[in-house]
Amino acid sequence: MGVVVQTIERAYAEVIRQLGAAGVATVHEAQGRTGCLASYMRPIFSGARIAGSAVTISAPPGDNWMLHVAIEQLQPGDILVLAPTSPCDNGYFGDLLATSAQARGAMGLVIDAGTRDVRDLTEMGFPVWSKAISAQGTVKETLGSVNVPVVCAGQAIEAGDVIVADDDGVCVVRRAEAEAVLERAQAREAAEEAKRARLAAGELGLDMYGMRGRLAEKGLKYV
Amino acid sequence: MGVVVQTIERAYAEVIRQLGAAGVATVHEAQGRTGCLASYMRPIFSGARIAGSAVTISAPPGDNWMLHVAIEQLQPGDILVLAPTSPCDNGYFGDLLATSAQARGAMGLVIDAGTRDVRDLTEMGFPVWSKAISAQGTVKETLGSVNVPVVCAGQAIEAGDVIVADDDGVCVVRRAEAEAVLERAQAREAAEEAKRARLAAGELGLDMYGMRGRLAEKGLKYV
Amino acid sequence: MGVVVQTIERAYAEVIRQLGAAGVATVHEAQGRTGCLASYMRPIFSGARIAGSAVTISAPPGDNWMLHVAIEQLQPGDILVLAPTSPCDNGYFGDLLATSAQARGAMGLVIDAGTRDVRDLTEMGFPVWSKAISAQGTVKETLGSVNVPVVCAGQAIEAGDVIVADDDGVCVVRRAEAEAVLERAQAREAAEEAKRARLAAGELGLDMYGMRGRLAEKGLKYV
Amino acid sequence: MGVVVQTIERAYAEVIRQLGAAGVATVHEAQGRTGCLASYMRPIFSGARIAGSAVTISAPPGDNWMLHVAIEQLQPGDILVLAPTSPCDNGYFGDLLATSAQARGAMGLVIDAGTRDVRDLTEMGFPVWSKAISAQGTVKETLGSVNVPVVCAGQAIEAGDVIVADDDGVCVVRRAEAEAVLERAQAREAAEEAKRARLAAGELGLDMYGMRGRLAEKGLKYV
Amino acid sequence: MGVVVQTIERAYAEVIRQLGAAGVATVHEAQGRTGCLASYMRPIFSGARIAGSAVTISAPPGDNWMLHVAIEQLQPGDILVLAPTSPCDNGYFGDLLATSAQARGAMGLVIDAGTRDVRDLTEMGFPVWSKAISAQGTVKETLGSVNVPVVCAGQAIEAGDVIVADDDGVCVVRRAEAEAVLERAQAREAAEEAKRARLAAGELGLDMYGMRGRLAEKGLKYV
Amino acid sequence: MGVVVQTIERAYAEVIRQLGAAGVATVHEAQGRTGCLASYMRPIFSGARIAGSAVTISAPPGDNWMLHVAIEQLQPGDILVLAPTSPCDNGYFGDLLATSAQARGAMGLVIDAGTRDVRDLTEMGFPVWSKAISAQGTVKETLGSVNVPVVCAGQAIEAGDVIVADDDGVCVVRRAEAEAVLERAQAREAAEEAKRARLAAGELGLDMYGMRGRLAEKGLKYV
Repeated sequence: MGVVVQTIERAYAEVIRQLGAAGVATVHEAQGRTGCLASYMRPIFSGARIAGSAVTISAPPGDNWMLHVAIEQLQPGDILVLAPTSPCDNGYFGDLLATSAQARGAMGLVIDAGTRDVRDLTEMGFPVWSKAISAQGTVKETLGSVNVPVVCAGQAIEAGDVIVADDDGVCVVRRAEAEAVLERAQAREAAEEAKRARLAAGELGLDMYGMRGRLAEKGLKYV
Repeated sequence: MGVVVQTIERAYAEVIRQLGAAGVATVHEAQGRTGCLASYMRPIFSGARIAGSAVTISAPPGDNWMLHVAIEQLQPGDILVLAPTSPCDNGYFGDLLATSAQARGAMGLVIDAGTRDVRDLTEMGFPVWSKAISAQGTVKETLGSVNVPVVCAGQAIEAGDVIVADDDGVCVVRRAEAEAVLERAQAREAAEEAKRARLAAGELGLDMYGMRGRLAEKGLKYV
Repeated sequence: MGVVVQTIERAYAEVIRQLGAAGVATVHEAQGRTGCLASYMRPIFSGARIAGSAVTISAPPGDNWMLHVAIEQLQPGDILVLAPTSPCDNGYFGDLLATSAQARGAMGLVIDAGTRDVRDLTEMGFPVWSKAISAQGTVKETLGSVNVPVVCAGQAIEAGDVIVADDDGVCVVRRAEAEAVLERAQAREAAEEAKRARLAAGELGLDMYGMRGRLAEKGLKYV
Repeated sequence: MGVVVQTIERAYAEVIRQLGAAGVATVHEAQGRTGCLASYMRPIFSGARIAGSAVTISAPPGDNWMLHVAIEQLQPGDILVLAPTSPCDNGYFGDLLATSAQARGAMGLVIDAGTRDVRDLTEMGFPVWSKAISAQGTVKETLGSVNVPVVCAGQAIEAGDVIVADDDGVCVVRRAEAEAVLERAQAREAAEEAKRARLAAGELGLDMYGMRGRLAEKGLKYV
Repeated sequence: MGVVVQTIERAYAEVIRQLGAAGVATVHEAQGRTGCLASYMRPIFSGARIAGSAVTISAPPGDNWMLHVAIEQLQPGDILVLAPTSPCDNGYFGDLLATSAQARGAMGLVIDAGTRDVRDLTEMGFPVWSKAISAQGTVKETLGSVNVPVVCAGQAIEAGDVIVADDDGVCVVRRAEAEAVLERAQAREAAEEAKRARLAAGELGLDMYGMRGRLAEKGLKYV
Repeated sequence: MGVVVQTIERAYAEVIRQLGAAGVATVHEAQGRTGCLASYMRPIFSGARIAGSAVTISAPPGDNWMLHVAIEQLQPGDILVLAPTSPCDNGYFGDLLATSAQARGAMGLVIDAGTRDVRDLTEMGFPVWSKAISAQGTVKETLGSVNVPVVCAGQAIEAGDVIVADDDGVCVVRRAEAEAVLERAQAREAAEEAKRARLAAGELGLDMYGMRGRLAEKGLKYV
């Protein structure tokens, strides 16, 4: 505890941008159905769709001091990722911190705890994915760390990993795998386009994917 | 496990349509305050108000294979109802399956698990009531069954039962009772209209319902 | 049980109004980070921002009889606050009760249980903060009490206390402290205005709040 | 609501007894991995292992009146099964009801709500599987039904179905399937005995079940 | 925050002792089915049955400093009651604090958070009712208060109120009502003795309580 | 997915043994209050106190195939650690697997899901810390991985890390830090011995830890 790592590596901005465009569901499938944060992580408003490099924060329950420390470490395009050291639903983050983070170029916040001032954040267009919305304030008494590995909502995240977040939730992509995952995500998207058209025309997935044989083999009985 | 019932009986389309118009709260009251699925079943977008015949799916946790099987069994106006065999919040359903279900005439999905691609589903106007929103994908390895009796979010549901769903949640009406329930629902709606006007004019429920005597009898004390 | 207190003291209307304008997060900070109801208390629609005097209701699980009794005790500007005597997510409240409460001048409802008819309530502009949305109806068989002290979603609330509610949740202010809290809330708001501008200009909280010295003292290490 | 079915069919006493001896895990496997109630249903003391015919109770939240009605319907060897009509953790059942139920020959209680007087029940040797332990008492104001189909902790249960309960939880067996399930359960138990000995001697499941080929086929890589 | 009330009034020791002997379920019934803390408050070991005067603690999440302050305020026979200012499951309390509290005469701890060293506490015979068992330690950085009113697990508790705790959970009795509640509890116990004997002899509650008439009136149908 | 790492490094057996003797609470404090798994991870029986090297398993929801694969990788003194890829409470593990694991020298199982056959496991003395007890069985259809990094109940765990588990829950120690943590744990234990004696004699923590000055500085008021 009490460490701030000042230099982190990030993925290429264009790779990050395109991962964001692919979206959480596609990216998570493209890396073998891994990387999804817990489903209780919900956006405070609909329609946001972002990707960025994680600036990670490990913070004590009910203490948001390290958010101030982390904001100094932000580079444009980053996403703050806060994991409390034990379960907490306090409102660590509000409009003043959002103003500061936005001024430093942050794209949003992912926090396994609470946020507040959600009306202001919505008006500012600063998206947050959180476990709770809570006005309950926090203190600034105990150190945490910045840019160390954390576990946030069930996923291990390192500083510089790519965070993708949209209405479906949040997904993390290892920095070193970002390009490979993007490639697979785009291949997947291309393949889906054709499938969508066939399904829209009434073709059954049973036929399109050729599932009937394997279902029969497993013993499926039609009665 | 591993059974697909291909022929199910449905209630009359017009009865179903009018149950949908009556809405969940009224229909549930009309059948003696029964039939509501658990309150954690929430719509992915506001304003949808549907009714249809249940095509039921019993599926293993983390396995959405049976959704493909069920879609073949859909008739226009049906609603897919998926109950996992043990608690699961995976995203069983997304935009491709919705495209397929919609092409076959499905009105929506009720799932005691997760759904994903919620932005796409919203744009398509395909409503889903679910326990969770989750991008976490599923496999296609283990059989389940289609159109067998299931327990979904606390209610026993059989294929062909009428599902009513709106912003208040989801309610099931036994197929054979659909007409009788509708009749009582419409009587209730008619009665409420007059009450609403009196209450809006400032009359108290205490007086309108004649509650004062019974409250006094029970011992209510005004101090 | 079974008591209705008919005379309660209220804070000054203008004080209440201004507490509402300050909002939940500011008011809760202004009274030493106290008074927030549990974060599971969520509004049924976004954008409502109200304050009013609590008319409290202690009701059995699954029994909404006392809501009718409480509505008679309402004065314009009041907020109904219902706490069940044990955990319950039933829909105690719907459009008829809302019509009646609104006719008597109620600003809204805070209920540590469920509400229903949320589409109607939204159209009526009658805001509710609740633990659940549920169509499940209730009976009228067992007495509770009105305007007695209750514990609602983790906070002790007395009749006449000021309730402030917005998109961040719900906060209670003791009636006797309302003016003092308002004064501190307004001082806080004024101070925040200047801070917001500096943060927006890119100044760091670390510098603006002079945190660097204390962080170093506590042992924070930059690596 | 408000119906008591007085005549129910039960499975053969000896079949029930042997299902109890097989235990929950074995019985549930023997019927295709179905029938388990939710895992939050826990025994109030360890070591109880019972089976009996379900006398079902549908009761309102916070109202235990129907337990008195149900006790009259008990035959020796029965198990009370109570499902509230909406989620509730009240203590519906205590030492007086247990004394009465035990005097009528009941083997135990399965309740998707709370129980109390757990020290007394433990001393009496009257086992209860419940969602909660709670001293919170209930009223006797609203009717429910006895020996109607219920959904209890996620499983549909009919009066006369066989309930098996032990330290692993609770399982239901359809009355008409009791004998067939028992046969498969006993076959399974016999098969397990031999496997246990081989595993205890250090043989691997990978070899004993011949899994290596299928794992390799699926692509498992040893590195 | 930051206040220690040093002088509190307590109920008579003998009254407290006898309330403890009556137990949680009886005491809670004797005061009109009020006072039970939430059912998630469970004892760390079975069989403890205590009553004492509350020494209350309001503490921040993850900060157990005030426990040290509170221990100085203990008198023999007191029970520590800790309520965090927001939800927290940290282990605030362990064997050193228990050693200290026991040396000052404390009977036990009721904590709406976590405790640890449960094996040691069990060996010491120091009972704790808690929301969680957790080894996660806490800091000593932020003030709370001692002997102020708190809300603990859903109940408002003031310093000097009587806490009764056993295997059924925890109940609070207002200090000023302790004698009256005890009287009713003892009357209730006396009445139950006779009932228990009649029920054990096979008499039905339906007959003993004379319920049949009222059930018929409500419309209960036997089929 | 689908990878088995066959060679893992382990800490020294004697270091592991002594970490187990120190216990979860002490070890977690000795490493800066880190490493505790979520408090919902509870032992199936009281009194077990173990430490061992983690053999990690990443498994799909409802699929226990990889447990068979992992058992082959066990060395005496190891502890199985299973993390499902999404939340699941199925009973992945029972007496046959325990027999096999015990024959290969496993000390126990830590599983962020369910276990069953708890009576048998208790009789065998095979301890399990789990999220749930559930008889619900699993399939063997989808690959997972063995000895890869996992997140289990909120903590990142690598194969070969030291797992310490007792009645307070579960803690992980990085393999490379095991010796340093042990040293600090033992220093802590030695220091606690003296403190315990002084507290038992009635000395206050306020005095023993010299807290009064800092409390006054922070503004604590005695009234």
